[in-house]
Amino acid sequence: MPQSPGRYPLAELKNVPEDIREHILKVQEKAGFIPNVFAALARRPAEFRAFFAYYDALMLKENALSKAEKEMIVVATSGANNCVYCVVAHSAMLRVYSKQPLLADQIAVNYRKADVAPRQRAMLDFAMKVATESYKISDQDFVTLRSHGFNDEDVWDIGAIAAFFALSNRMANLTSMMPNAEFYSMGR
Amino acid sequence: MPQSPGRYPLAELKNVPEDIREHILKVQEKAGFIPNVFAALARRPAEFRAFFAYYDALMLKENALSKAEKEMIVVATSGANNCVYCVVAHSAMLRVYSKQPLLADQIAVNYRKADVAPRQRAMLDFAMKVATESYKISDQDFVTLRSHGFNDEDVWDIGAIAAFFALSNRMANLTSMMPNAEFYSMGR
Amino acid sequence: MPQSPGRYPLAELKNVPEDIREHILKVQEKAGFIPNVFAALARRPAEFRAFFAYYDALMLKENALSKAEKEMIVVATSGANNCVYCVVAHSAMLRVYSKQPLLADQIAVNYRKADVAPRQRAMLDFAMKVATESYKISDQDFVTLRSHGFNDEDVWDIGAIAAFFALSNRMANLTSMMPNAEFYSMGR
Amino acid sequence: MPQSPGRYPLAELKNVPEDIREHILKVQEKAGFIPNVFAALARRPAEFRAFFAYYDALMLKENALSKAEKEMIVVATSGANNCVYCVVAHSAMLRVYSKQPLLADQIAVNYRKADVAPRQRAMLDFAMKVATESYKISDQDFVTLRSHGFNDEDVWDIGAIAAFFALSNRMANLTSMMPNAEFYSMGR
Amino acid sequence: MPQSPGRYPLAELKNVPEDIREHILKVQEKAGFIPNVFAALARRPAEFRAFFAYYDALMLKENALSKAEKEMIVVATSGANNCVYCVVAHSAMLRVYSKQPLLADQIAVNYRKADVAPRQRAMLDFAMKVATESYKISDQDFVTLRSHGFNDEDVWDIGAIAAFFALSNRMANLTSMMPNAEFYSMGR
Amino acid sequence: MPQSPGRYPLAELKNVPEDIREHILKVQEKAGFIPNVFAALARRPAEFRAFFAYYDALMLKENALSKAEKEMIVVATSGANNCVYCVVAHSAMLRVYSKQPLLADQIAVNYRKADVAPRQRAMLDFAMKVATESYKISDQDFVTLRSHGFNDEDVWDIGAIAAFFALSNRMANLTSMMPNAEFYSMGR
Repeated sequence: MPQSPGRYPLAELKNVPEDIREHILKVQEKAGFIPNVFAALARRPAEFRAFFAYYDALMLKENALSKAEKEMIVVATSGANNCVYCVVAHSAMLRVYSKQPLLADQIAVNYRKADVAPRQRAMLDFAMKVATESYKISDQDFVTLRSHGFNDEDVWDIGAIAAFFALSNRMANLTSMMPNAEFYSMGR
Repeated sequence: MPQSPGRYPLAELKNVPEDIREHILKVQEKAGFIPNVFAALARRPAEFRAFFAYYDALMLKENALSKAEKEMIVVATSGANNCVYCVVAHSAMLRVYSKQPLLADQIAVNYRKADVAPRQRAMLDFAMKVATESYKISDQDFVTLRSHGFNDEDVWDIGAIAAFFALSNRMANLTSMMPNAEFYSMGR
Repeated sequence: MPQSPGRYPLAELKNVPEDIREHILKVQEKAGFIPNVFAALARRPAEFRAFFAYYDALMLKENALSKAEKEMIVVATSGANNCVYCVVAHSAMLRVYSKQPLLADQIAVNYRKADVAPRQRAMLDFAMKVATESYKISDQDFVTLRSHGFNDEDVWDIGAIAAFFALSNRMANLTSMMPNAEFYSMGR
Repeated sequence: MPQSPGRYPLAELKNVPEDIREHILKVQEKAGFIPNVFAALARRPAEFRAFFAYYDALMLKENALSKAEKEMIVVATSGANNCVYCVVAHSAMLRVYSKQPLLADQIAVNYRKADVAPRQRAMLDFAMKVATESYKISDQDFVTLRSHGFNDEDVWDIGAIAAFFALSNRMANLTSMMPNAEFYSMGR
Repeated sequence: MPQSPGRYPLAELKNVPEDIREHILKVQEKAGFIPNVFAALARRPAEFRAFFAYYDALMLKENALSKAEKEMIVVATSGANNCVYCVVAHSAMLRVYSKQPLLADQIAVNYRKADVAPRQRAMLDFAMKVATESYKISDQDFVTLRSHGFNDEDVWDIGAIAAFFALSNRMANLTSMMPNAEFYSMGR
Repeated sequence: MPQSPGRYPLAELKNVPEDIREHILKVQEKAGFIPNVFAALARRPAEFRAFFAYYDALMLKENALSKAEKEMIVVATSGANNCVYCVVAHSAMLRVYSKQPLLADQIAVNYRKADVAPRQRAMLDFAMKVATESYKISDQDFVTLRSHGFNDEDVWDIGAIAAFFALSNRMANLTSMMPNAEFYSMGR
C-alpha cells in the first residue's frame, strides 16, 4: 500500500486482521488498486468492519435507486460537505455507472444545473436537505417524493445514503484522506 | 415494543432476526426498556447490525475518553444538529455517567457555558468543528488538542464520535424518531 | 443570595432599593428560591425595573395565549439563541404550566418535532422568524397566523415575547448567567 | 399624530393615558415632531412604559460612553438586523451628537470602514457580537475591551444597548414601523 | 484629485492616459467633482476602461428599467454586500433619479420595507438572489418576473447589474474606497 | 456554433459584429472550439467587449501570479459560488497551465486540502475572503500576504480576479451557461 497522504498512517496489508485483508484484496482485484479509504480505516478494525458493512448495506443493495443514482447522492452531498476524497472517488464511480462522463463534475458543483431527470432532481433536493438541515425534514418532503414515484422505503434509502456520507465526509476531512490518483480520470 | 412515534413503524421483536432480538433483549434487560432507536432500525437488519457495531466500537471502547466525555460529545453535536432523540437519550446517559445532573442540559444548549474542564472544552470545540465545518479542520487543531494532552488516537476518537452522530442525528430526523419517556428524567 | 455563577456579582438583598427587595422577596416566596436573573439584574435598579415591568406586561397578561404557550415561545427562541439560563428556567415553567413534562425538552431542541397543536406550531414558526430573521416578516405571515385563529393583537403578543427574549437571551449570555439548580428538575 | 405607515394603527394622543401623553408631548417639544416609535407603542401602555424606561436607563445615563458612542452601537447593530426605522432614526441622532455628518451612513453599512477611534472599533466589534452571536461571548472579549480602557460596567452598558435594540429592531420589523420623514435629513 | 482615503493612492489626472483623463474630466464637469471610484481605478488603465465600459453598457443603456430602478438594484445589492462606497454614492443617484429622497435609505437597509411598486419588489427580490445565492436561480424565477411584465432581456439586465456590482462592491472593499463627501447629502 | 444549453440563445457567428467575430475566431483557432461563454455573451456586444477586455486585463497580464495561480483563484472562488461553467472550464485551464492534472479537482472542492505551496494557500485564503465576505477585508490581510512575498499590486491582482469571477459566476448562473464537453477531460 502507498504511503499515507493524510494525517494518519495507512495500514499495511500484512498487519491487518485476516478478514480485513481479504476484504481489501477483493476490492483491489476488482478496482485494480486499493482505494485509500480502505487503507485509512483498516488501522481500526472494528470501525472498518462497521463502516463497510454499513456502506455495503446501503450502496450494494438492489432497490429502486440505480447504482448511478446512489452515486449521485454521494457526489452531491459530499460536494456540499467539501470532501475532496468522496467527491473525487465517487465521481469516478458515477461516471462508470451512469456512462455519462460529464454528469459527476456538474453534480459536484451544483446539482441544480446537472443533466438529471425530474425524479432525480427531487431525490437530490431531499438528499441535500438530509445533509445540510435535516432538522427541517417534514412530512411534506415525503409527499413531494411520493409524487415522483418514491415510496417510503426509497425515501429511507435516499436519506440513509446522505446520512452515511455525512459520517464518511467527516472522517475523510478529519484524517485528511486524499483520493488515489486513479480516480480522477476513471470513466471519462 | 411500543407503537412508533415516528414516520416508520417500529419493528416488533418477534419479527426480527435472532441476533437482533438478542441484542435488543440484552439492552432491555440493562436499561429496563427498549430505546426507540433499536426498534426503529431493527426493520433494516443489515443497517441495524452495522449501526450498532459502529456505535459499540466508538462508545464502548476503553480509551482516553471517559464514558461521560463520550456522551458530552454526543450531546453537544446533537444539539447543534437539532436532534431531539439524540439530545434527550444521551443527556440521560451523560447524567448517569457523569453523576452531574445539571451538565447535560447546559451542554445541549451551549457547551461554552457548561461546567467542564479546559481539556473537555477543547474536546468539545473540536467535536463541534467536525460536526459543523469539518472541511476547515487543520493541523493546528491537532496542535491545540495535543496541548490538552490528547494524542492523535484520541483526536480520532473524538472526531469519529462526532462523525458517527452526524449520521445518527440525520437518521433520527429522517425517521422522526422520538425519545422514550424514560430518558427525560433518568439520572436527574 | 448565592454567589454569582456569572461574570458580574449578584446583588445582595440588603443592598438593593426597597421596591426591588420587595419584588424579589415576593418571587422568592412563590418560587421557593430567588431565580438568578433577579439577583443578576438587581445591581442595576433602573434596568431591573424596566426589565421586569416589560416581562410582566408580556408574560403575566391574560390574552389569547395560555401561560404554557407563552413559555413555548420563550423556550423555542431561547434555544435558537443558545441561552442556557432562559432555556433551563423557562423549560421548568413550561413543564409546570403545560403539565406535559416532556414538551419543553423537545421544544428546546427542535420545536418542529414537539407534540404541539397546529396552531401552536404556527405560533412557534412565527416566533422563530421574529427571533432569527425579523427583517423578512411579511403580511403573508399575518395571513397565515389569522388562518390559525390569531388576530393581530395576538400576533403582536407572540412577536413581542420573542423580541423581549432576544434582549433577555443576550443579557444572560453577556453576564454568563447560569440557571439555579432548582430549575432543572422542576415539574418533571 | 400621523396615520400609521405600519401594520398597526398609531395611537392618538387624546386616547392614551395621561403619563404617556405627557411623555410624548415632552418628546415632541424637544424634537419638533413625534417619532413614530412613540405613537406605535403607545397603544400598549404597559409595554410603552417599560420600553422607554429601559431606553432611558441605557441611553440617557451618564457613563463612559458618549451620547454619540451609544448611537454608534444602535446604528451598527440595527444595520445588522436590517431595521429601517432604527437605522434612519438613530443615524439622525448620531449625526446630531457626533457633529460628524458622514459617520452614520458609514456605520450603518459597514462599521469596519467608518471613521472611528480604535476604542470605538472595539466597542462596535463587541456590540455586533452581542447582536449576532451572543452565545459565543467569552472572557477573552472582556480582556480585549479592558485593553481599550473599558471596565466591566462599560461592557455591560455596551452589551445592554445592543441587547435592547435586538428587542427594538424586532418590534419595528414586526409592526413595519417606518421612520418619520424628518429623520432622514436631520443633522446632515 | 484628493488624497486617497483608501489602501491605494488615487491616480493624479496629469499621470493618467489621455482617454482616461478625458473620461474623468467629463464626469467631473457633469457631477461637479471626481467620484473616488474614477481616481481609484485610473491607476490601472486597462481595468479602468473595461470597468466603465461595462458600467456604461448596463447603467446608461435605455431599456425597460428606468434610471431609478437601475440604481435601486445597485443600492439593495450593495447593502447586502456591506459596501460603503457603492451604497452612499448610488443612494445619491437614486435620490436624484427617483426624486424620492427617502427611498434610498430604506432600500439600503431593507428593500422589503421600501416604498416601491410590486414590479420593483419582484425586480429587487431577483437582484438579491443574483447577489447572494445565484446558484439557486431557477426557471421559476423567470416565470415570476414575466408575471410582473419583465421579458427575458429585462431579466438579463436586472441580473447583469447585480452581477456587475458583485464585482464593484468587492473592488471597493478591497481598496477600502470611501465615498466623496458630496454624495452623502446629494438629492436630499 | 452549438445550440445553447442555457436560458438564452447562443449568438451565431454570422450575426455578431466584426470585431467580436474576429475575437471569437481567434479563440476558436487556439482552443479548437468556441467556449460557450463567448457565444453566450456575444448577443450583447457592448457587454461582450467589456467583459473580455476586463478578463484579458486580469488574466493575460504578466505579473507575480503565474498563469496557473490565476486559474487557482478562479477555480476556488467559482467552486464557492457553485458555478458549473467556471469550475469546469477553468479547471481545464488550470490542468493545462499547472501540468498537475489532479490539482483542479482538489481546489474546486476544498482548496485547503489541495497540493499547493504555502504562498498559494495564503493567496487562496484571501481570494476566498474577497469572494465570500469582502466587507471583512482588513489591513491585517495585507500584512499576511506581504509575509508571503506579495506586494500591494499583487494583492490587487488576486482580489481583482476573485472580484471579476464574482461577476462571471453570477452571469453564468443567470444564463444557465453550461461548459463545452471538451473542457471536462482537457489536460487530464
